[in-house]
Amino acid sequence: MTKEEALFKYILRIADTNLILGHRLSEWIGHAPMMEEELALGNVALDLIGQANSLLQYAAKVEEKNKTEDDLAYLRNEREFYNTLLSEQPNRDFGFTIVRQLLNDAFNIHFLEELTKSSDATLAGLAAKAHKEALYHFRHSSAWTERLGDGTEESKNKVQNALNELWRFTDELFEMNEVDEILLKEKIAVDLKAIKPKFEKTINEILQRTTLNKPEKAFMQRGSRDGKHTEHLGFLLAEMQHLHRAIPDVTW
Amino acid sequence: MTKEEALFKYILRIADTNLILGHRLSEWIGHAPMMEEELALGNVALDLIGQANSLLQYAAKVEEKNKTEDDLAYLRNEREFYNTLLSEQPNRDFGFTIVRQLLNDAFNIHFLEELTKSSDATLAGLAAKAHKEALYHFRHSSAWTERLGDGTEESKNKVQNALNELWRFTDELFEMNEVDEILLKEKIAVDLKAIKPKFEKTINEILQRTTLNKPEKAFMQRGSRDGKHTEHLGFLLAEMQHLHRAIPDVTW
Repeated sequence: MTKEEALFKYILRIADTNLILGHRLSEWIGHAPMMEEELALGNVALDLIGQANSLLQYAAKVEEKNKTEDDLAYLRNEREFYNTLLSEQPNRDFGFTIVRQLLNDAFNIHFLEELTKSSDATLAGLAAKAHKEALYHFRHSSAWTERLGDGTEESKNKVQNALNELWRFTDELFEMNEVDEILLKEKIAVDLKAIKPKFEKTINEILQRTTLNKPEKAFMQRGSRDGKHTEHLGFLLAEMQHLHRAIPDVTW
Repeated sequence: MTKEEALFKYILRIADTNLILGHRLSEWIGHAPMMEEELALGNVALDLIGQANSLLQYAAKVEEKNKTEDDLAYLRNEREFYNTLLSEQPNRDFGFTIVRQLLNDAFNIHFLEELTKSSDATLAGLAAKAHKEALYHFRHSSAWTERLGDGTEESKNKVQNALNELWRFTDELFEMNEVDEILLKEKIAVDLKAIKPKFEKTINEILQRTTLNKPEKAFMQRGSRDGKHTEHLGFLLAEMQHLHRAIPDVTW
């Protein structure tokens, strides 16, 4: 694998996670039971899709195959997507959405902070902008986790169940492969081994402020680094891509 | 009708148009064939829903029935909505969406500018914020109308057809009734008769920069001032309201 191939895949990992999670969150718009939260989730969704847009523009440039960010978003197949399994999980109820977001944000605030130090100036610049947004997203998801986790018995149970169910997707966030190996040598990538204890500390601090329990060690799921996904991604892509594929390059 | 009753209905008219149009636009998120336009339409959608949220908060205060903005958004029936017929029309293709938006924005920039002079300080303040956003929305919808209107034969036809079809909803934008009469005396409401020539001038200027034709005088539709709507609103409300109605006052 060349350095350029590794960089392309590395950018896709970050971009795809934002793109898929952004689309997941956007599913609340038009259906949320509270206007204020509809606006909050909608704004997070557009931040994430905006980050994905910039990252895919850069990925297209790195790939040098004369593609656009839209080609990368709409014309890749499921196996060519590298978003985390966590990001593609369905919304279910609000508590589930919030816990999915919390785990994603708690990773992102530490990951993006390190990525701002990347020797790749474009990536470092995009990370700086994204990090500011991630801090805001984290404030939202952690505040809601605490509120629901200390709320009614029902809301507490929902959040605890979501935490138990989603925990198995957290190991994968820190998985490294040949891509990381190549880019770590160039000081482009972030050492994910160093991010993991920070992530755990952040999650522990939030759980300690509630009566929620940290999940027991679960059987950890993996696959997204190799383009292998849960059954949920295919449906999301079908919806996200169908209009572009139906009328490519036509003024819609 | 008391002054307060008139004011309540007047605020609902503005709020509901923003709420319904915002939800219509948000339907593009997750399905748009271009990321950049997905973000643009998504941002306009959230602006409009945000404006609706503030206006409904104020309407709830004026009504003095201990309701919240969510009660007003999710618990009213179709006949209690006062959004314009224009705002509830479906998205169809992108050209149709853009023309619907252009007609709405061209009204709004002039209407909101006048509303900033309202003797009702809350309404004037909300109008000032909304006017800034409307100018931005208008730049987007007018630029696209010109681009599509001078584009391919296909895009031009689509936009011309959209214009011909949506024109019948434009008279209603300027319709005044007892509500306006009461509030004009108090210098709270905007005189819509004075807005109409400004709207027409704006539309003419845009059409003159393209090869699009102004539609012939159509049979003008009306009804929204009395809570009478086209068949499209019911479906939109069903989708927008079902989750709130399913779990009222429960932590979702």
